[in-house]
Amino acid sequence: MEYDVPTGAPAAAPTPAAGDPRLSRLSLNQKTVDRLDLPAAVDLCARHGIPAIGLWREPVTAYGVRRSAKLVRDAGLRVSSLCRGGFLTAEDLPLFRAAIHANQRAILEAAELGTDTLVMVVGGLPAGSRDLAGARERVADAIAELAPFAASQGVRLALEPMHPMFCADRGVLSTVDEAVAMAAPHPVESVGVVVDTYHVWWDPTVAAAIAAAGDRIASFQVCDWVVPLPADTLLGRGMMGDGHIDFRALRGMVDDAGYSGDIEVEIFNADVWAADADETAATVKRRYTSEVL
Amino acid sequence: MEYDVPTGAPAAAPTPAAGDPRLSRLSLNQKTVDRLDLPAAVDLCARHGIPAIGLWREPVTAYGVRRSAKLVRDAGLRVSSLCRGGFLTAEDLPLFRAAIHANQRAILEAAELGTDTLVMVVGGLPAGSRDLAGARERVADAIAELAPFAASQGVRLALEPMHPMFCADRGVLSTVDEAVAMAAPHPVESVGVVVDTYHVWWDPTVAAAIAAAGDRIASFQVCDWVVPLPADTLLGRGMMGDGHIDFRALRGMVDDAGYSGDIEVEIFNADVWAADADETAATVKRRYTSEVL
Repeated sequence: MEYDVPTGAPAAAPTPAAGDPRLSRLSLNQKTVDRLDLPAAVDLCARHGIPAIGLWREPVTAYGVRRSAKLVRDAGLRVSSLCRGGFLTAEDLPLFRAAIHANQRAILEAAELGTDTLVMVVGGLPAGSRDLAGARERVADAIAELAPFAASQGVRLALEPMHPMFCADRGVLSTVDEAVAMAAPHPVESVGVVVDTYHVWWDPTVAAAIAAAGDRIASFQVCDWVVPLPADTLLGRGMMGDGHIDFRALRGMVDDAGYSGDIEVEIFNADVWAADADETAATVKRRYTSEVL
Repeated sequence: MEYDVPTGAPAAAPTPAAGDPRLSRLSLNQKTVDRLDLPAAVDLCARHGIPAIGLWREPVTAYGVRRSAKLVRDAGLRVSSLCRGGFLTAEDLPLFRAAIHANQRAILEAAELGTDTLVMVVGGLPAGSRDLAGARERVADAIAELAPFAASQGVRLALEPMHPMFCADRGVLSTVDEAVAMAAPHPVESVGVVVDTYHVWWDPTVAAAIAAAGDRIASFQVCDWVVPLPADTLLGRGMMGDGHIDFRALRGMVDDAGYSGDIEVEIFNADVWAADADETAATVKRRYTSEVL
């Protein structure tokens, strides 16, 4: 790591805990510390001994893709995933083609950043549309077009089933089963699925679905379901342990399915965002250890 | 009907359209006109030629169960369902027993009101609980205990799968498949399922699930999914045609499965509740005809 711990300086900041075997699979999705720019988020992970980071395109673009790649690499961090491609449901052909091109760019960015996982939030229904089946078909068509290009770049499209509450406006893929079925026509190394506890915890078939997903599982993300939902349902995700999700059970299912990759903590929550980032990182590590492992 | 249209009076109010064959299956769930007390809601249905009403226990209790039964009967209305029994997920045994007793009372009320359908909102997770499987098991146990009593009263328990966004705090039954599986051990006339478009529209397996439900379908309820969700997600339901649900497709599935009962319009929405009830009834009839039939 490039981060310098000033020799002999008082330990005002947490000391690095790199090498703590309990944290070997932990990744901090940078959305969890949304106020930090990329260098600050990378620095936070390095100082806290969090070995991987999940990146978002907007802050990466703001800092520059190549610079971001070097920054993360020099810090010794893995990039567990890049969020996000997708939004492939446009009915209007020029808009659909524009989405394909945007996703090709996202694939190139993922490759440059050194991650093999591009998280795909597939998109909701066009304004006024009631054609859910049609939207799902357009996503399948787009994946078929993008998968060979992704594979050529060493990148895997990771289809993210989203909570059904987001079906209309964010992601028409709603279950692990459905995502696996959409991935199935493609080579396992080019199209996988994301298992995000927040999106799938309610599913009465999730254990069987995760078992069947097997080596299609490209990413495992964790955050908790807390009630009541906030006014902005996008910001309702809680710190592990604050809500109703049994993380250890879901991690067991994912592990048993053969997944051994990073476990990304991704929390969209106004209170978490307002907190001190060092405190958030410390809480993430503590809760990851007590609730997920 | 007991409602008197003053002979020769100017047609300030809508004229009854009783007998309009297009409305023969239409039921107005009284929650759609939440500000009206029971006599006013019954009067509204009668004047608008809406042949059935879905009742809620609270306003029925406020008016008196026997009086309510006579009021509805004298108005010539069918009672399509009584909402609601359920809330059967308590871990605490005395609370669980209390819920059983409350449901026995609800069954007796349904019988007295002349409906064979008691809608069951099964309940969410107890505070702090992460044991979703356990909560679902307690619901199954409670249904097994209640079903014979319901059958003895000529009442069918109609298990309502709720949108997964309500899984933690309202209903741990999340899909039609899951509700049918829970109903399956019991005679078809004593335990059925509710298909509510709002709760199930997103489900990629809903067509197959409804077909498999067959004569388990005890109730079909309609309202639309509108975005963005309001701050109180309980009040996010829209008038048919205002959102993303393809009602005709879902009605076709339910019809093809053999359901020929009432189609209940149930809308929880602050704007609808603030509107003039006669306007709401007129809109319900118009949208029912244009969007659902």
